[in-house]
Amino acid sequence: MENDYYKKLPQGGVASPQGWNASGVACGIKESGRDLGLLYTELPGTAGGVFTSNLFASPTVKLSRERIANRVHAQVVNSGNANACMGEQGYKDVREMAFLAAEHLRVPEESVLVASTGVIGQALPMENVKAGMARAAGELSPEGGIDAANAILTTDTAAKQVAMQVEEEGGSYLVGGMAKGAGMICPNMATMLAFLTTDVQIDRELLQPALQHAADQTFNLITVDGDNSTNDMVIVMANGASGIKINREGPAYQRFCSVLQEACRELSYRIVDDGEGVTKVIALRVKGAPDRGTARTVARAILNSVLVKTAFYGEDANWGRIFMALGNAGVDFNPEKVDLFIGAVQVAAQGRGLSFSEEEAAAVLRCREVPVTLDLNMGQEELLAWGTDLSHDYVSINGSYRS
Amino acid sequence: MENDYYKKLPQGGVASPQGWNASGVACGIKESGRDLGLLYTELPGTAGGVFTSNLFASPTVKLSRERIANRVHAQVVNSGNANACMGEQGYKDVREMAFLAAEHLRVPEESVLVASTGVIGQALPMENVKAGMARAAGELSPEGGIDAANAILTTDTAAKQVAMQVEEEGGSYLVGGMAKGAGMICPNMATMLAFLTTDVQIDRELLQPALQHAADQTFNLITVDGDNSTNDMVIVMANGASGIKINREGPAYQRFCSVLQEACRELSYRIVDDGEGVTKVIALRVKGAPDRGTARTVARAILNSVLVKTAFYGEDANWGRIFMALGNAGVDFNPEKVDLFIGAVQVAAQGRGLSFSEEEAAAVLRCREVPVTLDLNMGQEELLAWGTDLSHDYVSINGSYRS
Repeated sequence: MENDYYKKLPQGGVASPQGWNASGVACGIKESGRDLGLLYTELPGTAGGVFTSNLFASPTVKLSRERIANRVHAQVVNSGNANACMGEQGYKDVREMAFLAAEHLRVPEESVLVASTGVIGQALPMENVKAGMARAAGELSPEGGIDAANAILTTDTAAKQVAMQVEEEGGSYLVGGMAKGAGMICPNMATMLAFLTTDVQIDRELLQPALQHAADQTFNLITVDGDNSTNDMVIVMANGASGIKINREGPAYQRFCSVLQEACRELSYRIVDDGEGVTKVIALRVKGAPDRGTARTVARAILNSVLVKTAFYGEDANWGRIFMALGNAGVDFNPEKVDLFIGAVQVAAQGRGLSFSEEEAAAVLRCREVPVTLDLNMGQEELLAWGTDLSHDYVSINGSYRS
Repeated sequence: MENDYYKKLPQGGVASPQGWNASGVACGIKESGRDLGLLYTELPGTAGGVFTSNLFASPTVKLSRERIANRVHAQVVNSGNANACMGEQGYKDVREMAFLAAEHLRVPEESVLVASTGVIGQALPMENVKAGMARAAGELSPEGGIDAANAILTTDTAAKQVAMQVEEEGGSYLVGGMAKGAGMICPNMATMLAFLTTDVQIDRELLQPALQHAADQTFNLITVDGDNSTNDMVIVMANGASGIKINREGPAYQRFCSVLQEACRELSYRIVDDGEGVTKVIALRVKGAPDRGTARTVARAILNSVLVKTAFYGEDANWGRIFMALGNAGVDFNPEKVDLFIGAVQVAAQGRGLSFSEEEAAAVLRCREVPVTLDLNMGQEELLAWGTDLSHDYVSINGSYRS
C-alpha cells in the first residue's frame, strides 16, 4: 500500500536516511560469514524501543532499554551468540561491547545500544569482538546498510531491508530499516531483531508511541513458532539530519506514524516469509471481534497451533483444526456464529462445516500465501496476522541448530 | 508403583471388573478396522466425567456431561468421525446413537453415554452406525475389552488397556480402563478419550472428585501437541457388582482414589509414549514451585514449545531453549535462581549455563525417556509432567491426516 506522499526505495536500507552510516564484518563469532554490524550517526538522535517480555532477557535488552532515553549515536548488533543466561559475565560483556564502539566512534558510552542474537548460554569471544569492532568502525559508510543487514542474520536465508522516502512541505525525509527473524518468532514482541533509522527530528515522547503502535500492528502480529526469544528488540533512531521536524500537531506526525508502520510491515512480512522451513505464509484476517485483544488472542491461538500449521503444510482445507484451535483460545465467543473462508471459498458458516469445492480450496492452498478469513460476527474489530506452516524442514533445522 | 493392596492384571481391560461387558465392531465409519465400541453393565451404575474445555465441544460432550448424573448402563464410542461442528444434525445423531444402544440393551435412553473421535465436520454415516450397533450389542462379552479398546483408536499404533485388582476386607474389586490418544493431546483436560470401569459401589458424589483428582495428576499433565480437541472426555463408571461399598470415611476411599489415579497414570503414559511420531518421552519434573498452578503453567510452557520439542528430537542438550520457554511462561520467578538437570547432568545453575559433559548429556538424550528436572528454588511444590519430541513423522502424519 503506497500512496502519493511516500515511495519505496528498492535498494535502500538502514543507512539510507541522511547522516546514517553502517557496516558489517566477519569477526569469528560465527564459524563463517558476517557477524558484527554497526549503525552510526554523528548527529546525536532520539530513540524508541520495544523489547522482549521473556524473563530470561539478555543483558543487551536491559542495557538498550535503559539507554533509549539518552541521545543515541550508535547501535551494535552481533549474530552467532545471544549473550543470554551468562550471569554477571553477560552484563560485563555487553557493557564492553558498547564501550569498544564508543571509543572508536568517540561518542559517549551511554549513547551506544547493543543487540545480540544466536546461541544461548555461551560466552562471547570478546577478543574477536574487539578486533571486529575496530574494523566495523573503520568500514562505516552510507552504503554499508546491506553489510549490516547481512551481519545480523542467523538461520535467515536473505537480508531484510527497507527504505521509504516521504515528501513533506520544505523537503523530504527517509525511514530505513533492517531485520532478522527466521526462528523464535511469536507475536508477543515479535521475537526478532529490527532496527529502523530516520533523518527526521522528532522528540522521544512522539517517537516511542509511534514505534509501539507500529510494532503492535506488525511485528506483534506475526508468528513462526510461538516462542519469544530472550533477545528480541525493535529499535528506532531519529537523527534530524533532514532538517524536517515532526511535531505532535498536524498531519505530518500521522504520516510519519503511517510510514514507520509500513516499514515495519514490510520487514515483518519478510521475516515470516523467510521463517525456518516455511513453505506457506498464512494471512489470517480475524473479523467481527468485540475488541482488539480478543482478535489478537484468537489469531495467535490459531497461528500457533501445530495441528493447524501442519495441515497448511499438507495443503489440506482442514477447517476443523482451525475451529479446534479457536475453541481453545480461552476467549469467549459464540461457536454458532463463526464463519470461515479459505481464500474466497467459504468452508464453514455459523460454526458448522459447509460442503465446498475441495478443488477450489486446494487451488488456494497451493499458493505461497494463503488468505484465511475468520468472522466471529460479534463486533467491529478486525486485524490481519501472519503465520507460517510447519514443515519437515522446520524440524530438521530445529533438531540440529542450537540456539 | 505397586504395593500390597493392589496388583496389575496384565491382560485386563475395561470389561474386567465384574458385571461389565464390552465389544468393538467394524461398521464402515472408518475405511477399515473396528470403529464402534460398546461398554455395558446390566446393573445400573454411578458415573463421573471430565470433559474438554474447547468451546467447539462436540455434542457427545454435551450429552455425556448431562447424563453422568444419571444411573448409567452403557457407553458408546466411535472412531473415524468426531461428530463435531455439525450444527443441529450433530445433536440429532448423538441422541440417535444413544437411542439405538438403549433399544438393543433394553435400558433407558438417558443411561447411555456417547463419545466420538475422528474427523471434524462430516456427518456420521448413521446407516452404518445403526447396523454396527446391532452387532456390537450382540457381541458384548466380558472378553470384549480388547475389541472395544481397538475400536476407539485413530492414529494410535496400539490398544491401551489397564486393569487393577484391589484387596479389601470382605473381598476384592477391580478397576479397568481403556484410552486413545495420539494427536491433539494437551494437559488442559488431556485431549483424548479414556474410559474407566469398576465394580465397586460408590456414590457419584465420591466418584466425581476421585476422577477429577486422578485426571489432574495424570491426563492433565501430559501433552503431545498442545491442543485440546473438541471431543475429549474421561469417564468412570461404577456398577457395584463386587459387593464392595466405598464410603467417604475410612482408608478404603483413599485406596480407591490411589488405584484410580494409578490406572489413569498408566493410560496417560501410554498415550504419550504412543503419541504421533514420538521418538522421545520427556519426563519433566518441576521442583521448587511456589504453588501447583505455577508448576503446571511452567511444565506446559516448556513441553508445548516446538523449539524445545525439536531440540529433544535432535537429541541436543539445548537448555537455552528450555530457559527461553520458561521465560515466556507468563509466571513470575527469579531467573537467577533456576537450576536445570538433564538426567543427572546439571546443565545450568542459578539461571546460568554450566560447562558440562556433552557426552554424558548425550547418553541421556539418546534414551527413549529423557528425565529433565527444573528447580525454581522458590517453594515446595513439585510435579511430574510428560511431553514428547516433535519429529519429521509428526509433520508427515499431521500434514496428511484430516482430523
